Amino acid sequence: MIINSVGRMIPEQIMGYKEVIPYQSPHNLNPPEQKAPGYPGKILPGENKLLPTIEEAIKKCDLRDGMTISFHHHFRNGDYVLNMVLEQIAKKGIKDLKIAASSIFPIHAPLLEHIKNGTVSRLSCNYMLGPVAEAMCNGAFEYPVIFRTHGGRDRAIEAGEESIDVAFIGASAADKAGNFNGTEGPSACGSLGYSVSDCMYAKKVVVLTDYLVPYPLAPASVEETHVDYVIKVDSVGDPAGIATGAVRMVRDPLGLYIAKLASDVIDASGLLKDGISFQTGAGGPTLAVAKFLSEKMKKRGIVGSFGSGGITSYFVEMLQDGLFRYLLDTQCFDTVAAKSLKENPKHIEVSSSRYANPHNKGCIVNNLDVMILGATEVDVDFNVNVHTTSDGIVIGGSGGNADTAACSKLAIVVTPAIRGRMPIIQEKVLTLTTPGETVDCIVTDMGIAVNPRRKDLEEKLLAMGLPVKNIYDLKNSIEKLTGKPEKIKTTDEVVAVVEYRNGSVIDVIRKLSN
Amino acid sequence: MIINSVGRMIPEQIMGYKEVIPYQSPHNLNPPEQKAPGYPGKILPGENKLLPTIEEAIKKCDLRDGMTISFHHHFRNGDYVLNMVLEQIAKKGIKDLKIAASSIFPIHAPLLEHIKNGTVSRLSCNYMLGPVAEAMCNGAFEYPVIFRTHGGRDRAIEAGEESIDVAFIGASAADKAGNFNGTEGPSACGSLGYSVSDCMYAKKVVVLTDYLVPYPLAPASVEETHVDYVIKVDSVGDPAGIATGAVRMVRDPLGLYIAKLASDVIDASGLLKDGISFQTGAGGPTLAVAKFLSEKMKKRGIVGSFGSGGITSYFVEMLQDGLFRYLLDTQCFDTVAAKSLKENPKHIEVSSSRYANPHNKGCIVNNLDVMILGATEVDVDFNVNVHTTSDGIVIGGSGGNADTAACSKLAIVVTPAIRGRMPIIQEKVLTLTTPGETVDCIVTDMGIAVNPRRKDLEEKLLAMGLPVKNIYDLKNSIEKLTGKPEKIKTTDEVVAVVEYRNGSVIDVIRKLSN
Repeated sequence: MIINSVGRMIPEQIMGYKEVIPYQSPHNLNPPEQKAPGYPGKILPGENKLLPTIEEAIKKCDLRDGMTISFHHHFRNGDYVLNMVLEQIAKKGIKDLKIAASSIFPIHAPLLEHIKNGTVSRLSCNYMLGPVAEAMCNGAFEYPVIFRTHGGRDRAIEAGEESIDVAFIGASAADKAGNFNGTEGPSACGSLGYSVSDCMYAKKVVVLTDYLVPYPLAPASVEETHVDYVIKVDSVGDPAGIATGAVRMVRDPLGLYIAKLASDVIDASGLLKDGISFQTGAGGPTLAVAKFLSEKMKKRGIVGSFGSGGITSYFVEMLQDGLFRYLLDTQCFDTVAAKSLKENPKHIEVSSSRYANPHNKGCIVNNLDVMILGATEVDVDFNVNVHTTSDGIVIGGSGGNADTAACSKLAIVVTPAIRGRMPIIQEKVLTLTTPGETVDCIVTDMGIAVNPRRKDLEEKLLAMGLPVKNIYDLKNSIEKLTGKPEKIKTTDEVVAVVEYRNGSVIDVIRKLSN
Repeated sequence: MIINSVGRMIPEQIMGYKEVIPYQSPHNLNPPEQKAPGYPGKILPGENKLLPTIEEAIKKCDLRDGMTISFHHHFRNGDYVLNMVLEQIAKKGIKDLKIAASSIFPIHAPLLEHIKNGTVSRLSCNYMLGPVAEAMCNGAFEYPVIFRTHGGRDRAIEAGEESIDVAFIGASAADKAGNFNGTEGPSACGSLGYSVSDCMYAKKVVVLTDYLVPYPLAPASVEETHVDYVIKVDSVGDPAGIATGAVRMVRDPLGLYIAKLASDVIDASGLLKDGISFQTGAGGPTLAVAKFLSEKMKKRGIVGSFGSGGITSYFVEMLQDGLFRYLLDTQCFDTVAAKSLKENPKHIEVSSSRYANPHNKGCIVNNLDVMILGATEVDVDFNVNVHTTSDGIVIGGSGGNADTAACSKLAIVVTPAIRGRMPIIQEKVLTLTTPGETVDCIVTDMGIAVNPRRKDLEEKLLAMGLPVKNIYDLKNSIEKLTGKPEKIKTTDEVVAVVEYRNGSVIDVIRKLSN
């Protein structure tokens, strides 16, 4: 075991995982000298990329035992692609595959069957919710699952650490040459930002669509230059499913109070001025901060530069109201956002690599002023957990949490002090997603705790009369109401690696004791 | 010496050039297994890419003797960037550089001084016009110049054959993070399609702009992820210069007659129907074909799929008139096109790699129905020369000539039978740019010659009553008026390699005898 700089016990070797680099600090690791190479092609004029079936694509791609296949999660809980493809692969008797998915949702429950029958043996993703996550916590996978951040996944792909043999891309529209996007067709889901690195670096790229349009489809999320085959299927996904696992604006007075307080923190920080850039998580209370910030911006005539990340109708409204110059969109969290991406030239589709890959020559989160982070729990070192609940079950993952915290000028956790009778502030978070050294403050209904590294911020908040508390005091006052929670019992068995955006291991998730 | 499949004598070795692969056929060569790798970066939040001077960028990029630096030609004869950069490099005493330019124009005459003083020793480009071209023909370069096609340049870069150390990119607008485009700012030149591969594969990328905008610049031709440094300069170019060396619509009756005839050939071919895709060269008579085609399309209610290549105001008008669904634009040939690219969402900027790189998983020219080719001369084997004039001086280069001919369904050379008292049809072209096996017919004012490979086309033209002639007969009737031209005298010294799009050598250019 190694203890990394945030105090987590990490095995020195993890089965099926690369050399373990213990997390040390947010920006310490350097990229390799060169990126992994992409794959050329040779398509002759008149050559046909259209294939009649997934089965045919599996054959053409020479998909074999032990390979890595990738999927994106833009249809979220409405995605049909992963299940469709795995069903065909299982039928062919191909075994021991690694799934490199950007996220896994409840709809992907059939994956469990493929794990049981040996079709799938490994999984990496940035976020996981539902039956697969629960089964993982109980040891369903032979090899530990690798959790990455959104930017970290692209980093890993581009560094050659996550080497994809075949990328299967669900697109709401495509042409016969493989140009595809997510804004047209009956299954429009909006941005396809998480599919870009897969297409750039996979050996073979297969696009599935239910809406084949005449050449050229434009604009294209990814162009014909990076697509090997196109398959027309009945349906790639249910757009109604894209809002799952995120995005409901809170309406309760407590949530609104916290959100209002967070907007006051931003105000006090001095960042609320022309050119402000801003992102929220997709959870209710974090999203509500946008509402209060909007009001302040409108009142003072402030025009922000951009809103980024997963885009909701609330951000679309802010763009329409002239409160942002641009939206930089890696994924649409609702159909309003998808429609706006199609219609509003100021609503820009961006790849997740551009969004947050730390080993590019620059990424969007480097330019982010304010990030509103969600959390299932935080701890006295300001560490954030968005992986596991208080009963130890995985219900998410970093997504962009660790990426934005590391790079934004002001990273604020917004959360009720008590959730489901459990205190939000722990001595130590069960799973460490985002290191406290990248988190500036925690805003709760029982007070605001400011990271001691940000004395400057604390002074500003106090000057504005905001209810700043020492984090230990805040923890104690919460525990007076909730009592001290019992510690979750886990075994020693590692079921998942939590990889920080730079490729180091910040934590592991252990199998639950029965 | 080797004789390649089109009868050209090629040295077995060429100084400073890779292994010579003699041209054999348009599609015989395969790409390497992997593309060349790109270069990652590590930019921390708040890190500044803005540099005060070119000199500082030279230092930061650690530019040294013998390196390769690249430039794009989107400002054409209005480009200030190449000269500005080379002036600073020469001041630092750096020697023996290779220039990988997409094209060289008369404005780049100062390059000759840098060749003389040893700053520059080698050059590759796709097109060359003016003093540098003339000096090259008289042996100014120590190493032979490498001519490529537009698609071939990207192929070479992506295959690692043309390995760029530092790309200098002139952009009419950029932000501090390096997002750049060519559609905004006082020097707007439109598409920056030729700069994309340079940015993707160069070790270092330096953007020069005279119009720095707040972050984020959107849309961006290339994004912050691929830019190392940004420099604000007084002016990157004169947009008035972009129309040089191309694009004047013919007005003379002869030119119009030929253009009309070519449009009749297209009509007879059966390709003039809904979904037609179409490209012209930028020369007067080829451009005029668009005019007649437009009339036919309007009359019959035909809607084309796309117009591609270098875009002129004539194509913009066709888009506006609903005659194309899209324009796919690698470069704007006039400011009308640049303005349309900015304003019309159906006018799409595309990289030259997507346009014509044969070793992508597909390119636009593969989807092209009709290509109107220019030529300085053709020969009885239907080979096309767009490199040299009848007196042996280089006045151009393939650009997309060989790319489009190889891939379009119908490649038509459109030319007056006599130009400057010289017959257009030779026994053998002086320089072979585009192999006859990829050219379908030659349309002149004295008749149409159809490639014997296209008996099907000949029959269709004859059925329409078009003046089809055997190419030898056509040659003879022209020579009755002009006499037989004298052969150009060259020495044995190779001053340039003409590389076909797939990386084979289709011809060489030899130094002129005095």
